[in-house]
Amino acid sequence: MIKPSLPRGMRDFSPEVTSKRNFILKSIRETFEKFGFLPLETPSMENLSVLTGKYGDEGDKLLFRVLNSGDYLDKLDNKEDLLSNTDLMTSKISEKGLRYDLTVPFARYVVMNRNDIVFPFKRYQIQPVWRADRPQKGRYREFYQCDADVIGTKSLICEAEIALMVHEAFSKLRLNDYVLKFNSRKILEGIAEIIGEISNAESFFVALDKLDKIGIDGVCKELELRGFSQGSIEKLVNMLTFSGSNKEKIAFLKKTLKESESGMAGLEEVERVMYYIHSFVGEMSEIEFDFTLARGLSYYTGIIFEARALNVKIGSIGGGGRYDNLTGVFGMPDVSGVGFSFGIDRIYDVMEELELFDTQQLSSTKVLIANFEENAEKFALRILSKIRNAGINAEIYPDVVKLKKQLNYANKKNIPYVLIIGPDELKKAVFTLKNMDSGEQAELSAEELIQKLVVEKE
Amino acid sequence: MIKPSLPRGMRDFSPEVTSKRNFILKSIRETFEKFGFLPLETPSMENLSVLTGKYGDEGDKLLFRVLNSGDYLDKLDNKEDLLSNTDLMTSKISEKGLRYDLTVPFARYVVMNRNDIVFPFKRYQIQPVWRADRPQKGRYREFYQCDADVIGTKSLICEAEIALMVHEAFSKLRLNDYVLKFNSRKILEGIAEIIGEISNAESFFVALDKLDKIGIDGVCKELELRGFSQGSIEKLVNMLTFSGSNKEKIAFLKKTLKESESGMAGLEEVERVMYYIHSFVGEMSEIEFDFTLARGLSYYTGIIFEARALNVKIGSIGGGGRYDNLTGVFGMPDVSGVGFSFGIDRIYDVMEELELFDTQQLSSTKVLIANFEENAEKFALRILSKIRNAGINAEIYPDVVKLKKQLNYANKKNIPYVLIIGPDELKKAVFTLKNMDSGEQAELSAEELIQKLVVEKE
Repeated sequence: MIKPSLPRGMRDFSPEVTSKRNFILKSIRETFEKFGFLPLETPSMENLSVLTGKYGDEGDKLLFRVLNSGDYLDKLDNKEDLLSNTDLMTSKISEKGLRYDLTVPFARYVVMNRNDIVFPFKRYQIQPVWRADRPQKGRYREFYQCDADVIGTKSLICEAEIALMVHEAFSKLRLNDYVLKFNSRKILEGIAEIIGEISNAESFFVALDKLDKIGIDGVCKELELRGFSQGSIEKLVNMLTFSGSNKEKIAFLKKTLKESESGMAGLEEVERVMYYIHSFVGEMSEIEFDFTLARGLSYYTGIIFEARALNVKIGSIGGGGRYDNLTGVFGMPDVSGVGFSFGIDRIYDVMEELELFDTQQLSSTKVLIANFEENAEKFALRILSKIRNAGINAEIYPDVVKLKKQLNYANKKNIPYVLIIGPDELKKAVFTLKNMDSGEQAELSAEELIQKLVVEKE
Repeated sequence: MIKPSLPRGMRDFSPEVTSKRNFILKSIRETFEKFGFLPLETPSMENLSVLTGKYGDEGDKLLFRVLNSGDYLDKLDNKEDLLSNTDLMTSKISEKGLRYDLTVPFARYVVMNRNDIVFPFKRYQIQPVWRADRPQKGRYREFYQCDADVIGTKSLICEAEIALMVHEAFSKLRLNDYVLKFNSRKILEGIAEIIGEISNAESFFVALDKLDKIGIDGVCKELELRGFSQGSIEKLVNMLTFSGSNKEKIAFLKKTLKESESGMAGLEEVERVMYYIHSFVGEMSEIEFDFTLARGLSYYTGIIFEARALNVKIGSIGGGGRYDNLTGVFGMPDVSGVGFSFGIDRIYDVMEELELFDTQQLSSTKVLIANFEENAEKFALRILSKIRNAGINAEIYPDVVKLKKQLNYANKKNIPYVLIIGPDELKKAVFTLKNMDSGEQAELSAEELIQKLVVEKE
């Protein structure tokens, strides 16, 4: 007899956890749809020719590869040679891999369906992805990504809408203490230019991206190692340590970056996005222009975003930005777009830590009908049907067992009410509704019962 | 430049198709929850030790296997010997496989969490599964299963609830022309007993399962080949060709099967389920006792179900039944349960064929705000915020382009209304709402506009 187990880095989600996760996903899905994004789903498996080379050498190593079906060895020539070359062997016996993110499959979809898609194309996608990473706390080998992108337009209204969308999604989740940082890659380029290190811009982004973790001193040390001059590092520190309101930062940079075309273009983007947000909703206190924000991914070319929960040490809970060449790798150039991705696992952890889940909001059974005796069953089933017809989630305990056991079942399942139909109730044709929280009991007619449950629901 | 493609048997779901599929899944999910089932999710990958041997030799061949990470060849001994034995090689270089169904992972979960689960355990699970089947029309290598099971009780109330649940789910989908056939495996055993072929009961089930496809003559021929005597086949034909109402069939079998203990026990189950359904809702016209229903899967031991759409040639759109030993293979005996599984792909096809999708019910944008000129943008963004705050899905065309192009976008995306804010409207501070279906236009104030959209929504 085998003792069953889970593969490393894989998770079961219990009903309680799945209900909470579904609440998060539903809130985000509804928000995406409110903003005009439509759902897309791509298959879990892609041809390796689509996946490899898109995530760097490190990413290629983290792809889960699926073994070809059938007698895959039979078809091979020079088998012995393959035994000493794992990569070559892999290329012969595996043609498909599991999705590593949602962006590359999205780009593939766009290219394959370019003639049917009406642009600008606003799509969202909520599906699991797989990475053969070393499992550790908070890092799993299967996890959901939750992306919304609009492609085929350069309008900065889209960037402003992302700020609104993040606000709406987090409001639905009652996750009100967050900050949405944003910046433009063009401003970072401008800074690199002004400090005289434009040729090392990529190194600068990579080092700056670690600011949160290693602090300004750490960033300086890393830049030193990467060959930045002492003079440029000093200039940089002067700029990065400036603090002030969004407006003060913009004013500061307008002076500092005035010699950089790219920097000034970035500032114009930032001001434009602020203007649009203001047009939409007036002041939005959660948005923060942070010109030290870098975001690791190199394909961003314009505005970049990062959302962080306040009062919780957990890092980013979402991020995104604008890219200018989503589909170039598949032969369709000049497709500009902007997207945002919510970090579901971290949002879940934040909501648990801040106790933001409202059990009443989680879909689950509202009433358990206790099962007392065969005589009452007919009566019980009829009222159960009526309760469900009123739109209330309800169930009956399927077996006649001690009431204590049935109440325990309700407790464990977080069912707020138990309906009791014992011999007394049968005689009087009433129902006893027990509130599992307060312990209170009320005798109600069928009409009263259903009215009470419907009112509670609303 | 590679031309991107999809692996065989894999599908992209366009926004239109995904919206429709999501509507089906949401309806079924809500139904499951109304009946007290809670969601469970298990990982896509399982250890092969969990998966193999559970689906027969044929099933083992259809498992998608995931290549071990890292330099998997480096760790192998006697590599050369493996080259001539694909199965052995596979066992050395692959430890994990993709989920083949939701039942085995469910059983694994129950065994691993037996001490935390409160029984009876009602869970539903909606996730994709993968099978390396030969792709053909209507058969894919990745598809969703959509299961609800209650385990840890033998109460036939659960079977009756399945009939109600199927009714509720199909009602939500407006799929009202269906029949839910049911039978008991024990009745089939009784029949095998009475015709003198109890030792060949399994062969009998397998042949009978093909009745729909090959007709009664085909079944007889197959039984002949399998060594059934002419006498027993004659007896069988007499029984199988009986027709009548549910009650008449029960009366007929009570006479015919009276010498079979198993047959009479099955009839008692059937009557009990009918009694419970009647207690719940009175008459239910869609339920049909069909004692020729066999269902292929050998693990069913009691009541079995099969749902079929009427007026569409498509076969079963859902099925299930009771099993007595879900978790035995993992060392936890005597767990009885009953479940039902909706066939999402076929339900989708039926709904398309019968034109049951109501575009109004599909979540999508209800209003597009046309983008005319920079001056109007501020005005447009403000009203867009208000419309969304009223709970309406809305978007703005992000670029200032010709109205015709914007209207075309709305048409392609099935957006029912376009809001126009041109120079005239700006001057008068009104909005022109264009109905894309009728072509009608109305001039409205902000309040009138929002009220109209909210009323439309309800």
